[in-house]
Amino acid sequence: MLKPLGDRVVIETQNEEEKTVGGIVLANNAKEKPQTGKVIAVGSGRILDSGKTLEPSVKAGDKVLFDKYAGTSVDYNDESYLILHDKDIVAIID
Amino acid sequence: MLKPLGDRVVIETQNEEEKTVGGIVLANNAKEKPQTGKVIAVGSGRILDSGKTLEPSVKAGDKVLFDKYAGTSVDYNDESYLILHDKDIVAIID
Amino acid sequence: MLKPLGDRVVIETQNEEEKTVGGIVLANNAKEKPQTGKVIAVGSGRILDSGKTLEPSVKAGDKVLFDKYAGTSVDYNDESYLILHDKDIVAIID
Amino acid sequence: MLKPLGDRVVIETQNEEEKTVGGIVLANNAKEKPQTGKVIAVGSGRILDSGKTLEPSVKAGDKVLFDKYAGTSVDYNDESYLILHDKDIVAIID
Amino acid sequence: MLKPLGDRVVIETQNEEEKTVGGIVLANNAKEKPQTGKVIAVGSGRILDSGKTLEPSVKAGDKVLFDKYAGTSVDYNDESYLILHDKDIVAIID
Amino acid sequence: MLKPLGDRVVIETQNEEEKTVGGIVLANNAKEKPQTGKVIAVGSGRILDSGKTLEPSVKAGDKVLFDKYAGTSVDYNDESYLILHDKDIVAIID
Amino acid sequence: MLKPLGDRVVIETQNEEEKTVGGIVLANNAKEKPQTGKVIAVGSGRILDSGKTLEPSVKAGDKVLFDKYAGTSVDYNDESYLILHDKDIVAIID
Repeated sequence: MLKPLGDRVVIETQNEEEKTVGGIVLANNAKEKPQTGKVIAVGSGRILDSGKTLEPSVKAGDKVLFDKYAGTSVDYNDESYLILHDKDIVAIID
Repeated sequence: MLKPLGDRVVIETQNEEEKTVGGIVLANNAKEKPQTGKVIAVGSGRILDSGKTLEPSVKAGDKVLFDKYAGTSVDYNDESYLILHDKDIVAIID
Repeated sequence: MLKPLGDRVVIETQNEEEKTVGGIVLANNAKEKPQTGKVIAVGSGRILDSGKTLEPSVKAGDKVLFDKYAGTSVDYNDESYLILHDKDIVAIID
Repeated sequence: MLKPLGDRVVIETQNEEEKTVGGIVLANNAKEKPQTGKVIAVGSGRILDSGKTLEPSVKAGDKVLFDKYAGTSVDYNDESYLILHDKDIVAIID
Repeated sequence: MLKPLGDRVVIETQNEEEKTVGGIVLANNAKEKPQTGKVIAVGSGRILDSGKTLEPSVKAGDKVLFDKYAGTSVDYNDESYLILHDKDIVAIID
Repeated sequence: MLKPLGDRVVIETQNEEEKTVGGIVLANNAKEKPQTGKVIAVGSGRILDSGKTLEPSVKAGDKVLFDKYAGTSVDYNDESYLILHDKDIVAIID
Repeated sequence: MLKPLGDRVVIETQNEEEKTVGGIVLANNAKEKPQTGKVIAVGSGRILDSGKTLEPSVKAGDKVLFDKYAGTSVDYNDESYLILHDKDIVAIID
């Protein structure tokens, strides 16, 4: 299991839906990474300069929207994940 | 629904009014993004280093003016939104 | 009405006086933006990291001198304004 | 023995598993450094501006995932180690 | 009158003395701005993050030495001034 | 004697051991500076923003490992030293 | 007299000793500025964000070693001085 540290969040990215026109699958631009994903695990939070811990703003299971170019992608157990800092998550999709 | 995180704000951008001269619609320069929009949702605010939360300075429904190059545009449910940091909102149009 | 947020200030810029030589109006270099203006509205101030609010250092009606390249110019109701951060105002002209 | 200072962590990097196809060992791209390793030693932690010490988030023996381009590699007693800042460790592999 | 804001200081710059050799006035390199001047007015000081005001370190009348490339030059009432941040004043000439 | 200031540390760098193969001394790449050295003197420490002094993390006599490109090399009494900031010392070799 | 402000220090730089070989004076590389000097005057110190004053770490008369590329050189009364920030002084030569 991946246990993210600090204010990090492990995301399982989701493929953007394929679009079909007359049965032909139109691939999206391969360079454009997905912008949505599901939170798999969250760290314990960021430590403020005052010594307090700032709780993560998302929790496992949340579907989230994140900055396209943020994070580190890691391969683990043949799955590909994205590890982001909490601040790079833009919104929760409810 | 999009729930913005931290000091983020979801904006529905507005098209600049088209200008007509003698009945001909003059399109604005397509590269120039709109500068005004309506606030759809706001996050819970920014956490200061002291641990206090700084409330957002706008609320849903506010018509706002924002920096032309700020924010991340996202597509959600076939609508296009702009997600800004609170600090990139320049003024409320009253 | 434009209600500037945070430490922002709305300025009505003033044209530099035209210079005339023998009745001919000499336009200033059009690229050089005016450096003086009148304050139209001020925000509620900047929030310090300690959570205190720092009052703006100018008020509506003040004639001010500002950094030539600062601010965002906005068009509103067919008027052109400049929105500056309080810190970009250099001096009050008394 | 290497005693890392402050928020530093000594890592023993691990070679990525070689992949074989029909008995032929396929070397990974040599330029791509390993991303996982085992923590050998940790420093006493980072001193916050408030004067408090922030404990390291990993301990000796942890298997960790780290940013590919972080850290300083050092040779010591014919072994090659990587010394990272605690914040460059992305996750613990449990 | 120019009332500088915050930690700003209004300086009346002084021409470097001309040098003469055998009666011929040798102009200094015109691109090199003067480095000394007289303080005309000072702002109320800089606000620290703690909310305290840091008094300016010079007062009107002081002859000062300042960083050659600092400040904004402004024209006011046909006089040319330099507006500096207090921190760009290097020394008082006593 | 050299008394380093603040969080600085004076280091006597050590030549990397020469390697010999069949009696022939193989010089290391001359451009690669040594990475280890002995601490000769330490400053009184860094002053935190809170006003507290942060003690140096090494003491005279420690054998240390440091970042290859850090520090200022100085010649003093025909000896060559390296003056580093405490934070550039990576580990103590025990 | 030059009274440096804040954490500044006025230094009288010293020429590096000329080296002679068989009576021929070998000039040092003219581009390399001296690295040692004598402290002539010190400011009152740096103000920390907490509002406390941090005393300068050197005093008039100290012989010091400083970063080669730091400071502003000023000409005053036909003498050439260097004005440094306290933090650019590396060590006191005792």
